[in-house]
Amino acid sequence: MPIYTAPTKDAQYILHDVLKVAEADIPGYADLERDFTAAVLDEAGKIAAEVLAPLNPVGDTVGCKLENGVVYTPPGFKDAFAQMKENGWPGIDMPEEFGGQGMPYVMGTAVGEFFSAANQAFTMYQGLTHGAASAILVHGTEDQKATYLPKMVACDWTGTMNLTEPHCGTDLGLMRTKAEPQADGTYKVTGQKIFISAGEHDMAENIVHLVLAKIPGGPEGIKGVSLFIVPKFLVNEDGSLGPRNGVSCGKIEEKMGIHGNATCVMNYDGATGYLLGEAHKGMRAMFTMMNEARLGVGMQGLAQAEVAFQNALAYAKDRLQGRDITGPKNPDGPADPLIVHPDIRRNLMEQKSFAEGARAFLLWGATLIDRAHRGQDADADGLVSLLTPVIKGFLTDKGFDMTVQAQQVYGGHGYIEEWGMSQFARDARIAMIYEGANGVQALDLVGRKLAQDGGKHVMAFFDLVKSTCKEAGETDGMAEFVEPLKRASKDLQAAGMYFMQEGMKNPNAALSGSYDFMHLFGHVCLGLMWVRMAETSLKALAAGTEDPVFHQTKLATARFYMARQLPMTATHLARIQSGADTVMALDAANF
Amino acid sequence: MPIYTAPTKDAQYILHDVLKVAEADIPGYADLERDFTAAVLDEAGKIAAEVLAPLNPVGDTVGCKLENGVVYTPPGFKDAFAQMKENGWPGIDMPEEFGGQGMPYVMGTAVGEFFSAANQAFTMYQGLTHGAASAILVHGTEDQKATYLPKMVACDWTGTMNLTEPHCGTDLGLMRTKAEPQADGTYKVTGQKIFISAGEHDMAENIVHLVLAKIPGGPEGIKGVSLFIVPKFLVNEDGSLGPRNGVSCGKIEEKMGIHGNATCVMNYDGATGYLLGEAHKGMRAMFTMMNEARLGVGMQGLAQAEVAFQNALAYAKDRLQGRDITGPKNPDGPADPLIVHPDIRRNLMEQKSFAEGARAFLLWGATLIDRAHRGQDADADGLVSLLTPVIKGFLTDKGFDMTVQAQQVYGGHGYIEEWGMSQFARDARIAMIYEGANGVQALDLVGRKLAQDGGKHVMAFFDLVKSTCKEAGETDGMAEFVEPLKRASKDLQAAGMYFMQEGMKNPNAALSGSYDFMHLFGHVCLGLMWVRMAETSLKALAAGTEDPVFHQTKLATARFYMARQLPMTATHLARIQSGADTVMALDAANF
Repeated sequence: MPIYTAPTKDAQYILHDVLKVAEADIPGYADLERDFTAAVLDEAGKIAAEVLAPLNPVGDTVGCKLENGVVYTPPGFKDAFAQMKENGWPGIDMPEEFGGQGMPYVMGTAVGEFFSAANQAFTMYQGLTHGAASAILVHGTEDQKATYLPKMVACDWTGTMNLTEPHCGTDLGLMRTKAEPQADGTYKVTGQKIFISAGEHDMAENIVHLVLAKIPGGPEGIKGVSLFIVPKFLVNEDGSLGPRNGVSCGKIEEKMGIHGNATCVMNYDGATGYLLGEAHKGMRAMFTMMNEARLGVGMQGLAQAEVAFQNALAYAKDRLQGRDITGPKNPDGPADPLIVHPDIRRNLMEQKSFAEGARAFLLWGATLIDRAHRGQDADADGLVSLLTPVIKGFLTDKGFDMTVQAQQVYGGHGYIEEWGMSQFARDARIAMIYEGANGVQALDLVGRKLAQDGGKHVMAFFDLVKSTCKEAGETDGMAEFVEPLKRASKDLQAAGMYFMQEGMKNPNAALSGSYDFMHLFGHVCLGLMWVRMAETSLKALAAGTEDPVFHQTKLATARFYMARQLPMTATHLARIQSGADTVMALDAANF
Repeated sequence: MPIYTAPTKDAQYILHDVLKVAEADIPGYADLERDFTAAVLDEAGKIAAEVLAPLNPVGDTVGCKLENGVVYTPPGFKDAFAQMKENGWPGIDMPEEFGGQGMPYVMGTAVGEFFSAANQAFTMYQGLTHGAASAILVHGTEDQKATYLPKMVACDWTGTMNLTEPHCGTDLGLMRTKAEPQADGTYKVTGQKIFISAGEHDMAENIVHLVLAKIPGGPEGIKGVSLFIVPKFLVNEDGSLGPRNGVSCGKIEEKMGIHGNATCVMNYDGATGYLLGEAHKGMRAMFTMMNEARLGVGMQGLAQAEVAFQNALAYAKDRLQGRDITGPKNPDGPADPLIVHPDIRRNLMEQKSFAEGARAFLLWGATLIDRAHRGQDADADGLVSLLTPVIKGFLTDKGFDMTVQAQQVYGGHGYIEEWGMSQFARDARIAMIYEGANGVQALDLVGRKLAQDGGKHVMAFFDLVKSTCKEAGETDGMAEFVEPLKRASKDLQAAGMYFMQEGMKNPNAALSGSYDFMHLFGHVCLGLMWVRMAETSLKALAAGTEDPVFHQTKLATARFYMARQLPMTATHLARIQSGADTVMALDAANF
């Protein structure tokens, strides 16, 4: 059975030594003292490792079953869900007035990584609920908030997001689901939605579906889409559950992974719905929470990479095979452990340097969201909007790649389901697709975010890289980290410049390079994180830290990232600068 | 249901226009006239598309079942196997004296791609038989050849390769399976083997296991390993089947993919075995066929990439989603097809340029094997030995990546098993692992093949690149293709130079860069193929070909590879030149 230990020490290092959360001028952050966050992370790590992780292979093997309209989650999920609720984890970063713990989003993100690493399919039930509750929190009437939020924050009721239909995924303007206004102010929602995660299951009394639909007679296309609350059971005035609503699960999809999460076809058959936010402004309401939701998916990329890495590392230390080329390291044994072999180390270091860099990137992103929401900081909001497609796209692409590399360490055993490495890769695969496929993230980044507010946010990012390099460069020994970041950042700027110059004349010139740009940007962000971590650890060592090995290890890992991963930016730039011609040359018929 | 059409036109182009097989001075090649190979490829393509492809999802969904020691293959496999046998496909490139069709290996490879693309799990039953028969052909006594080959060439009896044991994969010196000599010259084989593809099944009268085992008292480690023929049913003097031998299937593994192939735990319990080749020279006997076997696995990488690409392309043309940013391309429809979007094209062009380049590389490699074996050409043998780890490692890594990219084109539908894209990725994944995991291929390339015969073969490769560039450069319009290849080749030479200089002092300096080197080498090989194809097509156009669109498409695809894929060599070189320090820095305990 695969192992999992929550990386609490690394998370603490990032929160306190690197990001210095307790000192940050963000409302609520003063509470984030080192001991406090340590206690939270430890408890989260414990339940992740002891309760969620053992159910991960169960969820994969048994999956969800649909019988007579009822969806049964895998054995053990119900009890685990009850434990998570009892301990208040689902509402950790939700407002106290609705029963949450009121902690900043960064704490929800930090523990969310652990839960997701331990059991992605399971954690999605509460993750989707969080997303739906957040939309009601921002767009709901007082009455809607009072009716739904206390139940959803507690996860007594779970939530879903209903966007996709069979013929429309990214292009939601093609939507056919209808919401017909009724005399009492409610709507009758009719249509079919697909790919609805946690659409139906047996772990909650009620399920609150947020459904995008069109009100007949409204504007054409995406501008005529509205958002509705459609509960599985209607809610009586007194808050008790009323009759079953006209919504049902038609099918559970057979998927490559996340078998423990019920991905449902949902049929709405004149179901009673309540408008959430304004009519025809459904996309805006849905997108309010998009940065958070996409950051949450980026987190899944990191989470699967982390758990896969932990297992690959344990295997590499344990499995005896071959001899160190420079001389036996385990002379009394029949062979040396795999980890003596340079290519195994290269593989493991790629995983390690990704996971730690990604964790820093993600938690930094989460502090920007807190700064934007809690601190009403428009600049932070603009910056995190820019970074969101990078976090989502880069971390899930790389996260998946890392699970595949971790699987490779096991040789043939990696392909056998029993060892669990296949599940990590199969589960990680979805994160590249949902919440906006990564090609759409790249399009969002290059087509929208780069030029947003006159390019203000990307300029702010470059300024941040510059000032970080300058400041970090003042610490002795930082040149070896700062110089590669400067080079990588220059590649990113050159790519941006190319888009500005060529994209004016031909938008395809920019869009043909969008995917490379997203990855180029991701490498610069991880490089930036590694510079910040290297600076932190160099200073800690200079100050005589009690844990020199930890900081020396950070420096060695930073060096690896700079030497072995950052050079990728040059190739991305070359691809981008090759322009649209080779991409667009063929007629569709000649492919 | 996924589609598949065998790329016969492209295979014909490579065989005749690029490789000019019928004119090659290789015994048997004179028969390979254009019409003849067209007929063979068409027939193979037909059975692949009509018989094997429809069974691919069946194999995945139903899988193999073990009941009371009997393994049942998926419904339809038996009939399809009978059809393949009737048409003589399994023995296409086996000697006529044993019932084969005596065609060159290149033809077996060309049709093998089609079979593998249509149904990898199914095709492995005959592929393994081919490998085992080849070993008997080279190392068997006349009696052994007479007993086994006619049956195996016809696939009345199938074959297996038994290397791995639970505690020993790559490091076969740790092997525990014993072969005790008997008074009658036979051996009693006892031990457990795992990951035995096609180890037990219901499609053949007999199964001929080739088993590596140690004769007690022999040399320690890998030098004491011998190879044995252990048939499932003993064979009587008259060739009829005798009693069941002491070998049985203990378990079928649950795997990530290739569910249609029975991956067995095989238990040998004093089974009667016959020494194949010399005692203690089992590895040599096994490795004789390694180039072919590894090329066959590289072929699987291409095959899965090709079939996944065909489906992604069809979906991209069919699925309406969003609008072309430069203006609607399907103004009367609700949206434009996916293929108008630059990033979808970027993705598709990566798949197309890989598949066509890989096919050329593979078929060229196959001609080198024919030249080596049929033509007794030691230089060709040395060159293909050098290229084998590149073909296996690069084509399977990239092949898998391409199936993942193809899956991505489908968005959420790509994750649903019903659409078949997940199976391509899951099936392709194994090729990176078996027949020597790709890290071992990289080690073989850098640790053994580079320096083989004093570096003679890698020098020959560089000479070939140089002379190809020179010759191709003489054709008008070739500069845009030749220059990028020259640059990439310089990167490869610089990497080789780095290994020579640094590797002397510290072998880890070379081995830390082995994986990057394998990929760098792969890109140069595909670049070389694209130069040859560009030259071929430019000449065809200049000569007034009847099919200008085909050749213009080749040129456009070549341009894409040069502009968008070859720049990767610079990053691989940078990684290699960063040396071993960052890779080897950490103590195992500190990871």
